[in-house]
Amino acid sequence: MFKFDDTICAPATSVGTGAISIIRISGPDALKIADAVVRFRTGTAVSSEGYTLRFGSIADVDDVLVSIFRAPHSYTGEDSVEISCHASGYIVSRILELLIAAGARSAEPGEFTRRAFVNGKMDLAQAEAVADVISAGSEAAHKVALNQLKGKYSSELKALRDQLVQLASLLELELDFSEEEVEFADRSRLRSLLDETSAHVLRLCDSFRTGNAIKAGVPVAIVGAVNSGKSTLLNALLGEDRAIVSDIPGTTRDTVEEVLTLGGVQFRFIDTAGIREASDTIEKIGIERSLQSLKKAEVVLGVLDGCASLEELEKASAAIMERISPAQKLILLRNKVDVCRNAPVPEGLSVLDISAKTGEGLDELRSRIAASYSIADLAGNATLVTNLRHYEALSRARTDLAAVRSGLDLGTPTDLLAEDLRSAIRELGSIFGEIAPDEILGSIFSKFCIGK
Amino acid sequence: MFKFDDTICAPATSVGTGAISIIRISGPDALKIADAVVRFRTGTAVSSEGYTLRFGSIADVDDVLVSIFRAPHSYTGEDSVEISCHASGYIVSRILELLIAAGARSAEPGEFTRRAFVNGKMDLAQAEAVADVISAGSEAAHKVALNQLKGKYSSELKALRDQLVQLASLLELELDFSEEEVEFADRSRLRSLLDETSAHVLRLCDSFRTGNAIKAGVPVAIVGAVNSGKSTLLNALLGEDRAIVSDIPGTTRDTVEEVLTLGGVQFRFIDTAGIREASDTIEKIGIERSLQSLKKAEVVLGVLDGCASLEELEKASAAIMERISPAQKLILLRNKVDVCRNAPVPEGLSVLDISAKTGEGLDELRSRIAASYSIADLAGNATLVTNLRHYEALSRARTDLAAVRSGLDLGTPTDLLAEDLRSAIRELGSIFGEIAPDEILGSIFSKFCIGK
Repeated sequence: MFKFDDTICAPATSVGTGAISIIRISGPDALKIADAVVRFRTGTAVSSEGYTLRFGSIADVDDVLVSIFRAPHSYTGEDSVEISCHASGYIVSRILELLIAAGARSAEPGEFTRRAFVNGKMDLAQAEAVADVISAGSEAAHKVALNQLKGKYSSELKALRDQLVQLASLLELELDFSEEEVEFADRSRLRSLLDETSAHVLRLCDSFRTGNAIKAGVPVAIVGAVNSGKSTLLNALLGEDRAIVSDIPGTTRDTVEEVLTLGGVQFRFIDTAGIREASDTIEKIGIERSLQSLKKAEVVLGVLDGCASLEELEKASAAIMERISPAQKLILLRNKVDVCRNAPVPEGLSVLDISAKTGEGLDELRSRIAASYSIADLAGNATLVTNLRHYEALSRARTDLAAVRSGLDLGTPTDLLAEDLRSAIRELGSIFGEIAPDEILGSIFSKFCIGK
Repeated sequence: MFKFDDTICAPATSVGTGAISIIRISGPDALKIADAVVRFRTGTAVSSEGYTLRFGSIADVDDVLVSIFRAPHSYTGEDSVEISCHASGYIVSRILELLIAAGARSAEPGEFTRRAFVNGKMDLAQAEAVADVISAGSEAAHKVALNQLKGKYSSELKALRDQLVQLASLLELELDFSEEEVEFADRSRLRSLLDETSAHVLRLCDSFRTGNAIKAGVPVAIVGAVNSGKSTLLNALLGEDRAIVSDIPGTTRDTVEEVLTLGGVQFRFIDTAGIREASDTIEKIGIERSLQSLKKAEVVLGVLDGCASLEELEKASAAIMERISPAQKLILLRNKVDVCRNAPVPEGLSVLDISAKTGEGLDELRSRIAASYSIADLAGNATLVTNLRHYEALSRARTDLAAVRSGLDLGTPTDLLAEDLRSAIRELGSIFGEIAPDEILGSIFSKFCIGK
């Protein structure tokens, strides 16, 4: 195990409107440095105790509470100390100054988690999940991130990688004897194992669309002709949710006004202004930017004016359907049923009657939106890939495996097949950090906040 | 001691960009409720242990660290638990939901500190200092708040109140024997004690101007004629400090762009736009709002154009001096000495030569500003009143004492004097909470953040 020889410190809480701030210290001198800075009531040194809570004071700065974690039973696996003080920017910066004067240095973003990874407390996918757990804004996003943090995700990938290693050993056995031109390996077993792992990798790749939507919010677009009531609908849908989101104490989310959580999944109304603009001119020349946004939507709410003529309705619904792809989930709505209840519907068109104004039909609409991304799958614990780096590695592994498969059929020399297989193994290993060059680690942890 | 029969919970950290969030629980069922929500690795219950740190997990939510504080050795004086989890709004709100389902209720703003006060862990002035410590933005403000938090301030007020009680007993001794028309009390001793305490109360009242300036920042105004270089000076002064303030991790201060910390004291450039406007028209009819702002300044930087004629300089400096009061500290500056170095100065005028453009003389200016509110007084530990509520109580006590003093001279009946004295005693007692009606407590603690 690699040992770090310096001790790092950083605030672990944001200084905002809170009551308490926490400063973390980790490294070989963590206890010694805390001893130098904090005076304990009982006079004994921090380093004499392990895994306890102690009161102390820092002269002219604050009274503090000190939590002591002895290696390896700490987040980083190193000796660690957490100092809990009043949530004042002045106090936090003074304590950090004193810690640095006593021999610590300021931690870089993500450095505590990076040390936890290097010290073997978690693998790379788990380390990445830490940031996802912190930023998860819905039950579904939280559940996926927690699964990954707890190592379930990594276990599955490790098992998959082990299968590939097994495949490789079958192939290499053949390679060792290749000069004898004997096909030692049981090629049908090899094929079936390859097909099995390829299907698994493919399934994981395919889960990224869902996983990413759950992590970042499922993109929803509202489209429809002018005056069909799109803005009223958006406001009616968001109205209640806004209150729910703001119930979370201290949460400030830039996007709160356009996020709706239904059935534990976050739905994100993407670039709505643009979409609305585009849909207003949907029968004219499309606005490129809005159409691009529309393409990103997983769910499209097509709003029809329930008071329009049958001909207009047909035209409007055709205009909507022309613009969307079969992969997108379309929910067609006939709005304004409070005014025009019994207006005719174009034949063969399945619409949900709503009134954005009175709220009629909106509960049904909410269930339908929720059903479009049910977290039932999550309850069944299907693994979802949410991380772009993992998705890219899996996609490359998939290409490698496809090359092996077609190579087998085409009779490609075994050493070339083995090389592709080894590449797929490396790709899978890179996800949980089997191979983790400094450059990759730097790019992963630099996205973390300081203190994590 | 009053016992609370319910258990409260709240987040104690703000959910922002941090790594860790803390949720506080306090009350008779704190340990039982934590036991119901957290599953501990060792299987034993929280309530079996005191003053320790333990790892546990909350199913489907997070792994947590639990700090256990047994009454009375906690912040509130009650059994308390702190749950430390990942800094995610979702996780924090889920844990709060679970705690509430297990029998806790959401704490009101300041309720933890209010309980600490009611349970005798701190007096009212100390409780108020908690909020001041958290919001202190400079060394001086922090020092004053910390003094108050640590009880030094209360001790002084309690001693003062004790002196008044002694005075009252002398007077009431006389009152008991008043029918015999004998002046029992040693009136000269009474007078000297009264003068001493009155002087002390007066000193405390007078300290409010400084105390408040240190707490909220010392208001500084920059005034001067058009084109004298006021904006350039403000930018030159603030330029460096901005970097210093942003060194405090996670700090976001709305006023950062107009705050300068010199010698540990915060100087706040008040309503500068208005002042500048007013000073531009200072020889015309003054703009009311800007003049009001100018009146609030403790320090006024009067900027003269060093390239102006002698006559113009005389006019400009006269205009400035006309507008300020003797209580305000004026620093007259002759700007632009880089261009007009040897221009004449009006007779009898003491000016500091500077160049806002090149930075010449600015170090000297900074020392002079710093010297205008030196914290040397703080090092000497002179007590400063920083709280408006305390200042108002002291002012009323001062009026009461003045009435007693003049009553003594005028031969006012002793029972009336005793009543004024009792009023002064009540006023002083109200500062540290000797008498604390619910209404006062409500108004004090409602200004706290939730979780404190």
